[in-house]
Order: sequence, then C-alpha cells, then structure tokens
Amino acid sequence: MAEKRVSAEEIFKEFKEHSISEFFRKNRQMLGYAGKVRSLTTVVHEYVTNTLDACEEAGVLPEIIVKIKSTGEERYLLKVTDNGPGIPKKFVGKALANVLSGTKFQRYMQQRGQQGIGAAGCTLFSQITTGKKIHVKSGTDKEAYECDIGISIKDNKPVVENIADLEKGSFKGLIVEAEFGGVKYENSDHGVAEYLKRTALVNPHISVRLVDPEGKEMAFPRSVSEMPQRPKQIQPHPLGLESSDLLDFAHVTESTKISSFLVDSFARVTQNKITELKRLLPGIDLSKSPREMTWDDAEKLVLAFRKIKWIGPEMDSLSLIGEKQVEAAIRNILGPEFVSVVERKPKVFRGGIPFVVEIGVAYGGSAGRVTDGAVSGNILRFANKVPLLFDGGTCGISEAVKGIQWKRYNIDDFEASPISILVSVCSVYIPYSGVGKQSVAQEEEIVEEIRLAVMDGLRSLQRYLSGIKNKNTQESKYNTIMRYVSQLSADLSELTEIKSEIIEKELKSFVDKRYSALLADEKAETAQEGSAVAEALED
Amino acid sequence: MAEKRVSAEEIFKEFKEHSISEFFRKNRQMLGYAGKVRSLTTVVHEYVTNTLDACEEAGVLPEIIVKIKSTGEERYLLKVTDNGPGIPKKFVGKALANVLSGTKFQRYMQQRGQQGIGAAGCTLFSQITTGKKIHVKSGTDKEAYECDIGISIKDNKPVVENIADLEKGSFKGLIVEAEFGGVKYENSDHGVAEYLKRTALVNPHISVRLVDPEGKEMAFPRSVSEMPQRPKQIQPHPLGLESSDLLDFAHVTESTKISSFLVDSFARVTQNKITELKRLLPGIDLSKSPREMTWDDAEKLVLAFRKIKWIGPEMDSLSLIGEKQVEAAIRNILGPEFVSVVERKPKVFRGGIPFVVEIGVAYGGSAGRVTDGAVSGNILRFANKVPLLFDGGTCGISEAVKGIQWKRYNIDDFEASPISILVSVCSVYIPYSGVGKQSVAQEEEIVEEIRLAVMDGLRSLQRYLSGIKNKNTQESKYNTIMRYVSQLSADLSELTEIKSEIIEKELKSFVDKRYSALLADEKAETAQEGSAVAEALED
Repeated sequence: MAEKRVSAEEIFKEFKEHSISEFFRKNRQMLGYAGKVRSLTTVVHEYVTNTLDACEEAGVLPEIIVKIKSTGEERYLLKVTDNGPGIPKKFVGKALANVLSGTKFQRYMQQRGQQGIGAAGCTLFSQITTGKKIHVKSGTDKEAYECDIGISIKDNKPVVENIADLEKGSFKGLIVEAEFGGVKYENSDHGVAEYLKRTALVNPHISVRLVDPEGKEMAFPRSVSEMPQRPKQIQPHPLGLESSDLLDFAHVTESTKISSFLVDSFARVTQNKITELKRLLPGIDLSKSPREMTWDDAEKLVLAFRKIKWIGPEMDSLSLIGEKQVEAAIRNILGPEFVSVVERKPKVFRGGIPFVVEIGVAYGGSAGRVTDGAVSGNILRFANKVPLLFDGGTCGISEAVKGIQWKRYNIDDFEASPISILVSVCSVYIPYSGVGKQSVAQEEEIVEEIRLAVMDGLRSLQRYLSGIKNKNTQESKYNTIMRYVSQLSADLSELTEIKSEIIEKELKSFVDKRYSALLADEKAETAQEGSAVAEALED
Repeated sequence: MAEKRVSAEEIFKEFKEHSISEFFRKNRQMLGYAGKVRSLTTVVHEYVTNTLDACEEAGVLPEIIVKIKSTGEERYLLKVTDNGPGIPKKFVGKALANVLSGTKFQRYMQQRGQQGIGAAGCTLFSQITTGKKIHVKSGTDKEAYECDIGISIKDNKPVVENIADLEKGSFKGLIVEAEFGGVKYENSDHGVAEYLKRTALVNPHISVRLVDPEGKEMAFPRSVSEMPQRPKQIQPHPLGLESSDLLDFAHVTESTKISSFLVDSFARVTQNKITELKRLLPGIDLSKSPREMTWDDAEKLVLAFRKIKWIGPEMDSLSLIGEKQVEAAIRNILGPEFVSVVERKPKVFRGGIPFVVEIGVAYGGSAGRVTDGAVSGNILRFANKVPLLFDGGTCGISEAVKGIQWKRYNIDDFEASPISILVSVCSVYIPYSGVGKQSVAQEEEIVEEIRLAVMDGLRSLQRYLSGIKNKNTQESKYNTIMRYVSQLSADLSELTEIKSEIIEKELKSFVDKRYSALLADEKAETAQEGSAVAEALED
C-alpha cells in the first residue's frame, strides 16, 4: 500500500470543512480544558469574568455566588449566581452557546473577556463530558425567564430548550448551572478558591462567596463600595493601525472623504494633521471616497502616520488596580516583611495600543512558593484584573521577571528566595498567546515595561535588604566583641585589681550604647550610619 | 456616565458574531505570528509540514525548495516548491484560504498537520501584512493551473482569482508564493534554516534546499531513498472513547444494531466482546438501532469498556523516527562525546490514543546551548517528526525533562551542563496546547513515558560520566603519588645509598605501569577495573 502513488483527486475526496465547535471539541486543551483541576478552575474563570464585565458595564456592584456540588466521580455541578443585567432572551443562546460571538470582540476598551469564546466553551465542555445542557435563569429590566442551552457542535449553533417565562421583575441577574465531568475540586494554587481569592484581591468592589463541595463557605467580602472608574471606549490611535485595519475601516465607513473618515474614526486626528498628511502624501487625494482607498494608499498613510508627531492615546481607556490596592492585595495574600509597589505611566505597544503595568514586590513572610519545604521565588500574574494561574512558562510576564539580574538587587537566587512579584497588565487589548487566555504574548514593549517596573520595585527591596545585611553585620560584630568582653574583663581585673564583674558590666554597657541605635532601628539609612559607628569601634 | 445603570437590552445592541478568520486576524499571535523571526519560521513550518504530509500520502519521496527573497523593510517573498500530488483546482481555494477545513481533521492516523488551520493562516497573515494574495501553481495527475488566492475575512471564504490553465502534465507538484510583512530572516536557533535542518534530520527520506535572502544555498540532501512505512489509518480503540464521541459515531453510522456498530466502527471489538458487554449491561438492548442510543447508554457503554480486557491499539498507526536516525540526527547536529538513544514501546493516553516516545541524550561536544559563553542543558523537541522551536515553557516535553532528578545521574545542574535531550513524540493525535502547535499539552501518560525514556538514556550517560570521574580520580591519584616520588626517592637514597635518580626512575616506571592501562583507555568499564588497581596501590 505504502508504495502506491495516490493522486490528489483521491486524497481530496476526504476534504471537509468543520466548525469551530468541532475544532474545540477535539482540541479542548486549547481552551484550558487540560487537567482535572485546571478544567474546573477554567469554567469558574469564564463565568466570573463574564459576570464582572457585565456588572461593571451595567453599573452594578458585583455580587457573585459560586456553588460547587459533587455529583459523582470527578463530576461536579457548578452554579454561578450574579446580580448583573441578565441576558435578553433573544441573545441568550448565542451568548452562551455560539463560539465566536458576543458584545466585546469589536470593542476597543479594557475588558476582561475579549474573544466571545469562553462561555460557549463551557457549554461545549459540559456537553461533551456529561451530555447535559446548561440551565440558565435570567432577569433583565424587561423580562425574566429560564431555559436549557446546548450546542449543536457540527454547525456551532445554540440549541435552546424548555424556555419558561418568569414573572417580570421576579428575578434580576443571571444564574448559570452547568455540570462537568472529568474535573476535580482541589484546594491548591491552581484551584477555584485560589482563583476567586486572587480575583477578589484586585477587585475590591466585588463581593464573592464560594460554597465548596463539602458545603464549606468562603466569603470574600467587598472592601470598597464604589465602582471603579469605568474605562472609556476609545477610538484607535493612528500609530496602532496597520494597513489592513485602515483599509477595513475605510471600506465600511459612512464618511464620504478619506480626510473626514480619518478625523471621525481615529483618535487625535485633527484638521492640522490632515494638512500635514496632505503635505507628506501629495500623491493621494484625501478628498476621494474612503471606499476607493487601495492597499497602496493605506500603506502610504500608515507610513505617513509614523512621521507625524501625535499626542498619545487616551489613557482613561484603562482602569488600573491602583497602588494602594496592589499593596493591600500583597499584604493580604502574603503577609510579607517588606512590600514595594510601582505603578508605571501608561505606554503603547504595537505602535498605538495603550497599556499600563503595575507591580508589587513582596519579600519574607509567606512570600515565595514553598515546595517540599524549599522556598522559591514566584510570580503572581494579572491581566485586566483577572488572575492568570496557568501557562506561566510562555508568558511575557514571566519572561520579563525571569530576565532580571537578581544579584544586582542582593537576591542571590530568585529560585531560592522568599520573594513574590505581582505583575498586572491592563490594556484595551491583551495579546494573549492562547485561546485559553492564561498567558500574555511576549510583546517587546510590554515585556520591557514590566522589566523596568520590577527593577524599580527591586531597588527598594535592595535598600531594605542591605539594611538588614548591615544590621546583621553589626549584630555579628557586636556578638564578637561581646565574646571578648568577659576575657578582657578578667585580664583588666588582674591588672587593675578592680572586680571583674564591675569591669564587665561597664564594658558591656559601653558596647551596648554604641550599638543600641542601629540595633533598634531597622531602616537601611540608620544601618549605614551605624556602619560608621562600627568602623569607629573597630579602630 | 460610569454611574448610570445600563440595561442588558442596551448592552446587547452590540452583539455580533464573527468569523474564525476575523478572530485570528485580531489574535494572530495565537497562530504563531508573534515576533518577526518566529513569524517567518511559522509560515515555512506550515507549508513544509503540508508538503511532507501530501508527498507521503501520495507515495512520493519529497523534494522541497524553499526560497526567501527580501522585498523591502521586514518584508519577504517566500516560494515553496514541491514534487507532491498538487491540489485539485476545485479544492485549492478552500485548502489554502478557508480556516478550519482540510483532509486531515477527521482522520485517525499519524500526520504532521491535523487542524486545517495552518495554510489558511499563512494566506491570512500575508494578506493582513502586505495586502497581497498568494500565488499558487499546481499540477495534479489530471490538471495543471495557476491562480491567486486571498481570503474574505468577514466570512472566512476563499477568494480565487486569475485562474490560468496550464498544459496538463507540464508541471507536477505545488508551488506557493506568498509575501509577508513585519517578519525577519535570521540565522538563529529559531530561524528558518534551523527549522529546515531539524526537519531534514528526523526525515532522512526528504530532500530540502533553502535559498536564503542573500542568495546563499543550503542543501539538506536525502540520506535514505526509501519511503518510511506509511502509518495506517486506524479505528478508534474503545478505551480511547468518551461518551460524547461514541454517541456522535452512533448517530451517523449505517449499522442497524448497536452491536454491529461497535464491531464495525472500533478496533478490537469482536463478537466475544459483545457477549461480554451484554453480560455487563443487561439493561441495554444492543440490538436496537445506534441512532436510538442515549447519553446514558453511551456513558454505561464507556464504563463497561473499561471493565473489559482489550488488546491494545494497532501500533502500525505510528511511524517513528527510528533509533538509528535519532542517533544520526544527534551526531549530526551536536557532534557530542556521548550519545544514548531509547525507543520506548508504544503506549496509549486518554485511555486509548496510541503514541510512542523516542529520546536521545547527548553530552559534550556541541551539546547544550551556549549563551554569552555559558553552557546550559537544552531540549530538542519533535512531534510527529516536526521540530518544535517555540513555546517550550508550557510544553509537556519540557515539563517531563525538567522534572528529572539530575543529581542521580551525575549531572549537578542541568542548567549548567553541556547536555542536550532530544525527545520525539509520535501519535495519531498530538494534543497540542495551542493553535500554533508548538507545544504538547501536559497529558499525564505522555509526560510519564518521556520521563521514563529520558531516565533510561541518562543511566547510560551516568555510566559514561562515572567512568570519566573514575578516570579523573585515577589521574589525580597518579599525580599525587608522583608528587611524593621525588621526596621518597631522596629519602630512600639516603637509607639505601643508591643514587636518588635511579630510585626515582624505578618508582616512576612502577607507578606508570600500574596506571597506564586505565589512562590509555577511556571506557567506563576499564576505568572501573582501574579503580581496583588504584585501590590495590593505595593499600
């Protein structure tokens, strides 16, 4: 058989198209459904991020209840209840069971979800592991209902059944109940509780309760009762555009001239900039219809954009965790000896996509990760206020942190230090490296910003550590001197015929006095001052 | 604005469906289009894997020419020519410009491509970075033609233009010419040349030529002129089935009874097994139509499958690199001091998906990776004979190798040793963790097999290294003894009144004789023998 020549015509008899649902059904690990513990965390992650986005968009302080019940071997029923805006009946099927649809994909603003895959992926995962549909109860301003939703995998279409209308106003929000097989609830670094804890920590305006399979309740109450400033949806910045984007926008705009199209569709394009563009591109008629724009025009425009001096993108499109909250989160999770927090100024990547980096450095206490009794440095990653628990190995955040020259900061070995680095990236578009959204692609500008922020945080840690080091040096000098005090007292006593005890007491009090200042004070500055005292003593 | 309550109805005004092409256009990094060097390697990887699959399927020894020409700043024209079966005109648009279609997705056999995304992804990437269509020339047994192909992103449909028929038989094979922007040709670990070199090394039956942007030609000639045994397309094994798979198969089968459906559709199901199933499942009527199978039936059947003793899956579905070839590949790439190769027996993961692991351990020579003058251990990964150059951080292969307790094998620190581990996984289905297919998901059984294989290879290395260590010990003992010889000779000379020079000469020759065997021989065994001599000398 192997030697027979087979023709293309024969080979292509098997040619088929398949739906995105079929693709993910076969490659579920790409959605994060790999590993029993991870799979359960992934569904919780998908529902909770959707809920938070919906509540914030509706202007409601989020209250979420996550309930997980065991229903058999490696089988759990998950119920997520929120007080959000609900989903209109007309959209509920597609919103929860049509891979690649949603309200967020086209929006240019900071959101947790951005793909239109997550929730439908959960429905798919429930269906292929238990054969069941998810059950949904929704209450919007206009209607309340419940129904079952499945997915027709072959054509990626929702299947909505058993729709029952409820009295309008009888319920407000969304409840999703879904059962999953081949999953496992576990209290670990990668488990649901840890995920919710980290979510709560960087989203102090939310209230989350978890009821675990043993019926134990864990509450992460709201600690701030104001909504965070809602990030603004912005227009793309000319510097973030590629020719193909520009062309696509041009071909659907309602503007009648390229010039007005540019002013209307993109940020920072004023009449002055149009004049500049005309000067730079005498060959392109900016008064022609955008629909007539060619690739060549688009390419030339993009190149011209790069020659113009622009005001940066609008940064109110970003909603940070905030310095205070980063510090609170770190103190809460790790109870460290030392914390420093750095919030960088907003920057852009790929020319014009705004993002901002916040970091925290924690040292001592429960910082670092303990495995088999050995401590090692670890990284707490967040993207648009969502904790990233998986796929650290290829993440730009880890990349940036691991590239740090630790020795410069008095850390001999990151892999053996009680140190945690929290890194948060917020952007109107997070360039995730995979569909499972657990790692940020290694975009040069983002990696560099993280590096700078962490280095900044580490400089504070270094000052702290060299303080300790000085203090330790002082202490060991003090102890060394003290060891000689007894012997010296005895010798002096012989010479002077003064009682040894008296001499010893005097000597000790003398040494104590010299060292007391620096031993009492933990600050590096004092330790350095103390260093001079110690040197004086040594002379 | 932020405080206003927004209703679900308002939010869902923005609800949209989008095509898979749009999704990847926005998230191209998920396809491997992240980084300029990586992006160019990715397109070469996609075309070359398709070419190899097609040639092997057609029973043709592959001859591939990859030509890369610079056409501007960060812009290259890639031309890949093969002698494969070509693509029928009728399918060429969909095969090269419809994401999620192809001949391989549904097949249960070892193939390089398995997703139906790669080639269309290249067309998309060309289009969004240069605005150009790809140019294709194809010759099958029945027709020859050329055309331009683009992709309609909004609906993921191919756009085929400028079709020109050529004289039948005037050309056989496929030529794809595509231009890409924002990419970079580089001679590095992650570049095109390295990718092709590694491809050639584990596919000795192929001939590849690369013409780089400077016009330099690099040839990787065929070293074996026989086609590798073509892996057989097999039926799924009952142990690899999930309820949802079983149900799907049942609902489309032409068999009229569940019993005959099982015998006809899956491997190793005999009439005897049906009898066993009947005994285990008295409640299910196996003579009813498969179309009537419920989820409950399917779940019970899957559980019953696990209680039956099965013959394993057919392993001729796998096509290995082969021990000899793994060793040749390693010697060729690394010229190491030491090589050991292990080929494991085929195993299954997820219950019934066959796979096999081959590994090679190389030490010394150019093994390991050298960065800034410092050597570190590295891993050469392959999946279905395709080199994986990216995303090592989350790969199950790296995971397995990094979990090794190196000290047990006389390796103090993998990260600082001149050691390379080649790992190849072949399977009817590689569970890639991302759409870009550069890392294997951490499936427990696969990780474990790799671990066992590497440990086996390391035991040989350990024997080799302890040989060297013994030899080094001998050498240092020899040197120590020699240092005393002069002094001893002088002392003996005084005692015996024999000339010191004579005694020294005698003593040296005596010591030399004892050590000569082991110093001349590099083999561990001899070194161990020598160890006994040394011990005898010490007594």
